[in-house]
Amino acid sequence: MVRSRPLAVTSIDTVVEGTHFRLSTHAPGDVGWKALATALSDLAAMGAEPGEAYVSLVLPEGFDGALELVRAMEELAGDAGVSIAGGDVARGPALVVTVAVTGWADDEGALVGRDGALPGQLVAVTGELGGSEAGRLELEAGSRDGAHVTRHLRPVPRLREGVALARAGVSAMVDLSDGLATDARHVADASGVELRVSLDRLPRAAGVSAEEAAVGGDDYELLVTVAPELLDAAHSAAPLTVIGEVGAGKGLVLLGPDGPVDGLRGYEHT
Amino acid sequence: MVRSRPLAVTSIDTVVEGTHFRLSTHAPGDVGWKALATALSDLAAMGAEPGEAYVSLVLPEGFDGALELVRAMEELAGDAGVSIAGGDVARGPALVVTVAVTGWADDEGALVGRDGALPGQLVAVTGELGGSEAGRLELEAGSRDGAHVTRHLRPVPRLREGVALARAGVSAMVDLSDGLATDARHVADASGVELRVSLDRLPRAAGVSAEEAAVGGDDYELLVTVAPELLDAAHSAAPLTVIGEVGAGKGLVLLGPDGPVDGLRGYEHT
Repeated sequence: MVRSRPLAVTSIDTVVEGTHFRLSTHAPGDVGWKALATALSDLAAMGAEPGEAYVSLVLPEGFDGALELVRAMEELAGDAGVSIAGGDVARGPALVVTVAVTGWADDEGALVGRDGALPGQLVAVTGELGGSEAGRLELEAGSRDGAHVTRHLRPVPRLREGVALARAGVSAMVDLSDGLATDARHVADASGVELRVSLDRLPRAAGVSAEEAAVGGDDYELLVTVAPELLDAAHSAAPLTVIGEVGAGKGLVLLGPDGPVDGLRGYEHT
Repeated sequence: MVRSRPLAVTSIDTVVEGTHFRLSTHAPGDVGWKALATALSDLAAMGAEPGEAYVSLVLPEGFDGALELVRAMEELAGDAGVSIAGGDVARGPALVVTVAVTGWADDEGALVGRDGALPGQLVAVTGELGGSEAGRLELEAGSRDGAHVTRHLRPVPRLREGVALARAGVSAMVDLSDGLATDARHVADASGVELRVSLDRLPRAAGVSAEEAAVGGDDYELLVTVAPELLDAAHSAAPLTVIGEVGAGKGLVLLGPDGPVDGLRGYEHT
């Protein structure tokens, strides 16, 4: 039983062995961390303050990593100020972790959707892009450490940044889970506007190309749109890199040195 | 975004192909129904008023029943006054449906736990027991219809009964998902008391023995403990059959014609 605040937002996310991770590259703790981080990132993107997490585990026969998985989840929950308040465990043919997280806000003005972008506003992102995908490729190639690998295995949801950016008045926000080329399009479509993003302005992780930064997923940075007069306040709330503008057209336009670049796509999960 | 009431209770439940159902006996709609019913039954057992459901689907390659699954879930949600407010879909090796449901209450007195049973109180249940397990066996034997089969495939969570029984002052409540022999023990253990239940008093579905009624799972009836002076009020809230008493010992005692019967167990999910 949880004592409520006036508004609740709940997000549910599932990670599946073989689809989102492989136990050959992800330790059980990495899987638990990722599952909770993914769900919390959805709250971050709304500017909600995290409250409780509810966890369902499907464990395959012979899997002995459940304790490690839950411990890593508890570590992230502690960092994020979330309590794991309930759960369920079942047997199944593959490791599946589902996390439902509830976040809270005191009024509607404290929350941000994907649908508030307006022509004339700026597009900006937190942090650096492409590092997680670079880490995934390094893992596939057999590496087990380095900044990119850590970034991929233990992503940190931008919860404090999300709340602060919402308070600073950003007009739309999304977390970059499937890659900017996919997630920025969600903001454009939900808002009925055009996002024009310059590839050469993307803040890139070390050794990552602009194209890789545009399509790489799992960074869990935040993309916002913000009125120019609120940019300073937003940048004080969380360091931002301006990467483009909102226009009156439709959809996402990724601009290279020779004009629009077609065909860049992030993850397209089903 | 949901406007809250003062207290939130959230439950998460997962059903897995091969563990909780098989697609040879359960149509996709039956699976969706069962997943939501199982989660809602947890709210019923607390006396919470159902609010929102959040659904995660893991769909195997080639599975074409997702629409039917979701439609059945929406049908039950409509019956139960629940809105399906969010979800996630992923690919995986088996059909897995996870449902997180949030229920609401205006004050703590409106909710009931498993830990409130006191010596001298009565033990009672709603409805009839054993029908769902009988239906499961009929399904395994090739039957596709009849009351028991329907009972197994489309269980109805006792939401209105749960709220009404909580208001009528029952002291502890649990839903009979794993079978009385298991779930009544949960109440005894959580309350630190002894539940003494007479097998010959169990309300039985047609053709079901007392032992089968005690161990059969998935009935989703409610078991309550209630002070004798509140029995009439509770019975008016939801028709009850008194099946035993709360004593000062510990654990569950199932009484047959010749005294305590050992070794009866309901489902023991892991």
